[in-house]
Amino acid sequence: MACRMKGMHADNLQLDAHGRLKHFLAIEGLPRALLTQILDNAERFAPVGDRAVKKVPLLRGKTVANLFFEPSTRTRTTFDLAAKRLSADVLNLNIEASSTKKGESLSDTLRNLEAMQCDMFVVRHQSSGAANFIARQIAPHISVINGGDGRHEHPTQAMLDVFTIRRWKRRFDALTVAIVGDVAHSRVARSEIHALRILGVPEIRVVGPKTLIPAEVESLGVRVFHDLEAGIKGADVVIMLRLQQERMQSALLPSGHEYFREYGLTAARLKLAAKDAIVMHPGPINRGVEIASDIADGAQSVILQQVTFGIAVRMAVMSMVMGTQALGGADAEHD
Amino acid sequence: MACRMKGMHADNLQLDAHGRLKHFLAIEGLPRALLTQILDNAERFAPVGDRAVKKVPLLRGKTVANLFFEPSTRTRTTFDLAAKRLSADVLNLNIEASSTKKGESLSDTLRNLEAMQCDMFVVRHQSSGAANFIARQIAPHISVINGGDGRHEHPTQAMLDVFTIRRWKRRFDALTVAIVGDVAHSRVARSEIHALRILGVPEIRVVGPKTLIPAEVESLGVRVFHDLEAGIKGADVVIMLRLQQERMQSALLPSGHEYFREYGLTAARLKLAAKDAIVMHPGPINRGVEIASDIADGAQSVILQQVTFGIAVRMAVMSMVMGTQALGGADAEHD
Amino acid sequence: MACRMKGMHADNLQLDAHGRLKHFLAIEGLPRALLTQILDNAERFAPVGDRAVKKVPLLRGKTVANLFFEPSTRTRTTFDLAAKRLSADVLNLNIEASSTKKGESLSDTLRNLEAMQCDMFVVRHQSSGAANFIARQIAPHISVINGGDGRHEHPTQAMLDVFTIRRWKRRFDALTVAIVGDVAHSRVARSEIHALRILGVPEIRVVGPKTLIPAEVESLGVRVFHDLEAGIKGADVVIMLRLQQERMQSALLPSGHEYFREYGLTAARLKLAAKDAIVMHPGPINRGVEIASDIADGAQSVILQQVTFGIAVRMAVMSMVMGTQALGGADAEHD
Repeated sequence: MACRMKGMHADNLQLDAHGRLKHFLAIEGLPRALLTQILDNAERFAPVGDRAVKKVPLLRGKTVANLFFEPSTRTRTTFDLAAKRLSADVLNLNIEASSTKKGESLSDTLRNLEAMQCDMFVVRHQSSGAANFIARQIAPHISVINGGDGRHEHPTQAMLDVFTIRRWKRRFDALTVAIVGDVAHSRVARSEIHALRILGVPEIRVVGPKTLIPAEVESLGVRVFHDLEAGIKGADVVIMLRLQQERMQSALLPSGHEYFREYGLTAARLKLAAKDAIVMHPGPINRGVEIASDIADGAQSVILQQVTFGIAVRMAVMSMVMGTQALGGADAEHD
Repeated sequence: MACRMKGMHADNLQLDAHGRLKHFLAIEGLPRALLTQILDNAERFAPVGDRAVKKVPLLRGKTVANLFFEPSTRTRTTFDLAAKRLSADVLNLNIEASSTKKGESLSDTLRNLEAMQCDMFVVRHQSSGAANFIARQIAPHISVINGGDGRHEHPTQAMLDVFTIRRWKRRFDALTVAIVGDVAHSRVARSEIHALRILGVPEIRVVGPKTLIPAEVESLGVRVFHDLEAGIKGADVVIMLRLQQERMQSALLPSGHEYFREYGLTAARLKLAAKDAIVMHPGPINRGVEIASDIADGAQSVILQQVTFGIAVRMAVMSMVMGTQALGGADAEHD
Repeated sequence: MACRMKGMHADNLQLDAHGRLKHFLAIEGLPRALLTQILDNAERFAPVGDRAVKKVPLLRGKTVANLFFEPSTRTRTTFDLAAKRLSADVLNLNIEASSTKKGESLSDTLRNLEAMQCDMFVVRHQSSGAANFIARQIAPHISVINGGDGRHEHPTQAMLDVFTIRRWKRRFDALTVAIVGDVAHSRVARSEIHALRILGVPEIRVVGPKTLIPAEVESLGVRVFHDLEAGIKGADVVIMLRLQQERMQSALLPSGHEYFREYGLTAARLKLAAKDAIVMHPGPINRGVEIASDIADGAQSVILQQVTFGIAVRMAVMSMVMGTQALGGADAEHD
C-alpha cells in the first residue's frame, strides 16, 4: 500500500496524467476549467430527467458500488438514481452492517469489491479523508466518488450548489454569497467555499455564532460575520446550512428555538439581501430552526431545484470519472 | 397545499379530466367500465409471466418509488416485480427507517422524491387516507398507487381478487360471494366489497363474529351472517380473510383454536357452498386458524393463482396510471 | 409433497432426465464430465468481467430470488452481480426478517415466490439439507442453487476453487492438495473434497487439530494430518479454511493466537510446500489467525483471484440450470 502512494501528491490524486478526472474526492485544488466542465456536462444531463425515458446508456454494464459507512437516504438515493439513469448496475452495501461484523478489515473488504470487478465506489464515511484513503488503496481501474467524508468535503453537493447558482445568476464574478450556520462541522460548507473561490466569486461570507465558525476559516478567503443581518446584507445567494440535531443538544448551542431567533432566515431578514437573492439549503431542512417555513417554500427558494440538479451533476461526475462523457453520450437510448 | 385541493373532489381525485386513471387510491367510486378496463389490461399482461423473457418495455426509463411506511414483504415484492417486468427503475425506500429519523416531515420527504423526478409512488401506510393525502400533495406528473392504507382500502388486492373470480366464473352477475373473517379491521374486505358491487355481483355476504363485523357494513349493500355455515351456503366464491395475530391476543376474540372451531373453513363446511365454489385468501395464511390446511392446498383453492394474477393486475394498473397501456405495449421486447 | 419425492433419488435430484444440471445443490455424486462442463463454461464467462460492458443477455427477463436465511454479504453480493451481469432481475429477500415474522411457514413462503413466477432461487441457510428440501418442494420450472447450507455443502465455492486450481495447475491428476483448518464445521471443505476427488486429484489431505477434523473424514478418501508442517509438505495447493469466531470462543480451541502458532500459515511453513504452490482461502480472512498477512498478500496467494473467478463460475452455473448456456450466449450484448 505504502508503495502505491509514492510520487502521488494529494492534490492531484483525483486527476490522471492528462488532467482528466479519475476520482472525485474534493473540490480543493481542482482547476477552474475542470469545475466548469462538470457544470457544462451536467447541463447536458439535466434534460434527461424530463424525458419520457429517463435513461442513457453511458454506464451500461458498469458496476457501481455504493459504500455507505454512515446512513444517508437522500445522498444514497440520488447517487443510486444517477447510476441507474446512466444504465449502470448498482450494489448498495451498508458496510457497517455487513463484513465488519465478521471481523474483516476495511482494506480486505475493498480488495474483495475490487476483485468483483466493480468500476466505481461511491463512499460515504464518518471519517475525514476516508474517500482519499480508499482511492489510494484501490486498483487503478476503479474510480472513487466522495459522497461526504467526516468534516472534510462533500464535493458533489458543492457542485450541485454552484450549478444551481449558475442557473440563476449566470456568472460568478460579481456575486456575494453568504453561507449561514454551522460552518465548523460542515463538509458542505468547506466544499462550497472551495468551489466558489475557484469559480471566482469575489465575496464569500460565512455567518454564524463564534462556536460554529472555525478559527482558521478566514485563511480560505472568506469574510466572517457573527451577526446574521450584517452577513446577508446585499447577498445574491444565501446558503443556509443544516443544523445537526446532535449539535442542538450539545453545549455549543442554545436550543433550536433560540438558534432560530439569532440565525434563522425569516422574510424580514431576507429583505436585507439583494432583491433577487436566491435561498439554498442542502437538506434535510429543520423548519423553524435554521429557516422559516414560508422562506423554505417561498418564491426565492431554490432548495428543491438543488435536489433535481443534484442528479444531473452526479450523472456528469460519474460519466466523467468513467471516461464516458463523450459527445452523444447523453442522447436518448435507442431501443 | 390547500390550494391544490380546491375544486378536486375526493371521488375523482384518481381520475383525470378525461376519466382516465391518474392515481389508484381506492375502488370506491370508480366506474364499472374502468374496473373492467383494468381486468382486460391485466389479461394482456398475464401471459408475460409465462414467457422466457418476462419483460415488456412499457415503463422503461421511469422511476418507481416504493414508499413503505409499514413492512410488507409480499406486497412490496409483487409491486417490485411488476415494476421490473415493466422495465422501470425501482427505488425501495423504507421511510420509517430513514429520513423521519433526521426529523424531516413526510411532506418534505415527498417534495424531495418529487424533485428527484420519480414518476410513481407505491404507498403502504398504517394510516387510513395516507395515499389520498400524498396524491393531493404531490406534483401533477406523479401517480400514486395505494398499496394498503390503514383500514381504508387495498385496491390492487381487490382487483386481483375480482380478476381471479372472473377467470373462474366468467361473469359477475349471478354470483354469491362470501367474505369470511375479520371484516372490521380489513382494508382488503372493504376494497373487495366495493369492487364486487361495482361489477354487479348480486349477493355479497360478510360472515364473522359480531366483534369483527362493523356495525355500518350493511349500508355497503352486503348481507351479514354470524354463522359460518349459513354464510357460505350456496356461495360460488368463499374469500377467507387473514386473522391478524394481534387480534388473536386481544379481548375481541378467543384463541386461534377456538376461532377455527367457529369460523375456520373445513372440508365439511366447504361442502355447503356451491359444488364448484372457489376458495380465496389474500395471504399470508394462518393454517388451522382461518382455514384448514387441506382446503388451502385443495382442488378448490385458487390462493396461489391470486398471487400470480396479482403481478399482472399491478402491471396493468402501473401502466395505466403512466398512460402507457397503449396497444402493442404488452408485446415482448425485441432485443 | 411426499408424492413429489417418489422415484426421485437424492443423488440425481439435481440432474434432469437427460443428465443436465437442473439444480446445483451439492458436488457429491456429480459426474466428472459435468464438473468439467461447469469449468469450461466458466472460462467463457471469465472475460465478461474485463469488458467495457460487463453484461450478457442470457438471463434477460428471468427473475432470480436470493433467499438468505443467514446473512452473508460476500456470497449474496457475488450471486447478485452474477445475476445482474446475466441481465436477470434480482429480488434480494432476507427471509428471516420478513414473512416468518408473520407466522408463515417456509413452505408457504416458497409457494408464494413460485406463484410470483421466479425462475431461480439462490438459497443460503443455516440448516444442512435446506437447499435439497426446497428443491424437492418447488414447482418444476424453478431451479435451486445452494449458496451454502449448514455444514453440508457450498458447491459454487468448491467450483470456484477448482476453477482457480485449474487456471494455475492446468491438470488435476498429479496434484497434492492440502485443506487446513476447521474441516469439521466446514461446508466449504466438504464440497472441495468431493470436487477434488471427482476431478481426479490423487492426494487430498486435511490438516487440523483433532477437535476440528471429523472422525469419518477418511472415508471420503483423504489423508489426515494433525501436524501442519507434515500436512503441507510438498503440496501443490494449500487451502486455508476460515476459523469461525464462535469456534475461537468455544472449548474446542485455544485462542486465535495459539491457533496461529500451531496451524497458521507462515512464510517459513509455506516453504515446505511445492515451490510453485498456490495459497487459497474462501474469505473473509482472519489475518494472524489462520494465515499470516504477508502470505495472504504474497506472490503465491490467489485469494482475490478466487473472488473474481467466483462470479464467472456463478454465471456459468446460473446459465446452465436455466438451460441458456448455449453457444454464443456469452457474447457481448448488442445494443
